Amino acid sequence: MPVLISPSLDEARKELVVGLEARKLVVMVASCSVEYSGRTGSHLGEGERLVIVKGDGCILVHRGHDYQPVNWQPSGCIIQAHANDGTLVLKAVRPSPLESLTLVVKEIQFLGSFVLQDAAEFILHASEEEMQRAIILQPDMIEPGFKILDFEKKVPPGFVDVYGVDRDGNIVVIEIKKDPAGFPVIKQLLEYLKYLQAPPGRKLRPMIVAPSIAKGSQSTLAKSGIEFKQLTLQKAVEILQKYARSDQQALKSWL
Amino acid sequence: MPVLISPSLDEARKELVVGLEARKLVVMVASCSVEYSGRTGSHLGEGERLVIVKGDGCILVHRGHDYQPVNWQPSGCIIQAHANDGTLVLKAVRPSPLESLTLVVKEIQFLGSFVLQDAAEFILHASEEEMQRAIILQPDMIEPGFKILDFEKKVPPGFVDVYGVDRDGNIVVIEIKKDPAGFPVIKQLLEYLKYLQAPPGRKLRPMIVAPSIAKGSQSTLAKSGIEFKQLTLQKAVEILQKYARSDQQALKSWL
Repeated sequence: MPVLISPSLDEARKELVVGLEARKLVVMVASCSVEYSGRTGSHLGEGERLVIVKGDGCILVHRGHDYQPVNWQPSGCIIQAHANDGTLVLKAVRPSPLESLTLVVKEIQFLGSFVLQDAAEFILHASEEEMQRAIILQPDMIEPGFKILDFEKKVPPGFVDVYGVDRDGNIVVIEIKKDPAGFPVIKQLLEYLKYLQAPPGRKLRPMIVAPSIAKGSQSTLAKSGIEFKQLTLQKAVEILQKYARSDQQALKSWL
Repeated sequence: MPVLISPSLDEARKELVVGLEARKLVVMVASCSVEYSGRTGSHLGEGERLVIVKGDGCILVHRGHDYQPVNWQPSGCIIQAHANDGTLVLKAVRPSPLESLTLVVKEIQFLGSFVLQDAAEFILHASEEEMQRAIILQPDMIEPGFKILDFEKKVPPGFVDVYGVDRDGNIVVIEIKKDPAGFPVIKQLLEYLKYLQAPPGRKLRPMIVAPSIAKGSQSTLAKSGIEFKQLTLQKAVEILQKYARSDQQALKSWL
């Protein structure tokens, strides 16, 4: 775990190259300017920032405030460091779509490279209830123009999770599963359909919303006439968080 | 800029408390487990992570891969550190909506606290063209069910930026501005309307898409019958990036 305090740019560059090659986590507090060029471009003048480079080729530039990075590139970049005209240039290039992030570093307070031992699994305590709430809050995630008519709608064999109408007036009958959708949920939804009917001239569109389709159930699903819409717990939770936050902002603007 | 290498948990806690009180940027590489509890919950078992706490009360927990943090809380949290049963507990609580992120730290490789001098402005090189592209790629951002019919549509006084239809069949005539929308764009759009007409039984809905309404133009806009839809350059660029990335993924799945 080499840690350099106020290194020269040349010392820093050498350590950076070693860290990048070893695919370590490199953390740097440095005075730099940042240029992004891709579909659009951006420029951030000189200032002190926290720079993070991970072994999978992503890079983040953080300012002293805000949880979001001011500039970043996703995993899979080619990241290179070289000296140029008395500065250290750190460049992260993604070949396609072509995007590049260039940091021109003038001074470094701190540079450390780390190996993180971390094999833990991330476990989300969310359930089908959260997925249902996410669909109700943002019906458009099912498809543009989709509207909720009811949820937990009683039918003799049970309850329809979400019951809505598409933009052509067809009835969409949604069953939600947090696990890969297999034969039991297909059967359950087909049971429900026996007790439901579309308005004249419209049709019933049965749909399973789940993170994936269970192995071996693909063809049964295809033959059943049931549509599949992917939704993961993670995505559902993100939608709920977005709404919790915007509710809060709306509330604040009234206070 | 105090930097501690493999400090004891007690040393680390003291430095952390000082850093938090001074609203510094605190960066820590530590072995910890992470619990989130809010609308939902999550659990991440023990492992080594990069932990970032900023002076505005946000916190990020990063693993060794992926540009996104595995857990985070936005600005405005109350962040506290205390010793508990041989561990260091770091807790970030947001009062409303009530959410808390708790790190139980067992060992620390590195802890540094920094003051970042950074007054630079972030400048986005984007234009109305990017805003137009974002609307064309994701028409739903205007409103659910909105569809594009044409863009750069020729009318005698100029070109309509985006021309579409809402879900009730009304014609939406959009003029885009990257700066606050004021009198000139209102006048321009009203000029265009003279040369456009809605199908029988439908209406024309003139709409300005811009980051904000110019000072003093609010009442003119209200009287004009023109709708306003907020879109910032930043948001437009995010949409374009999302599409650039998903295009790429779609492409990869064909290769």
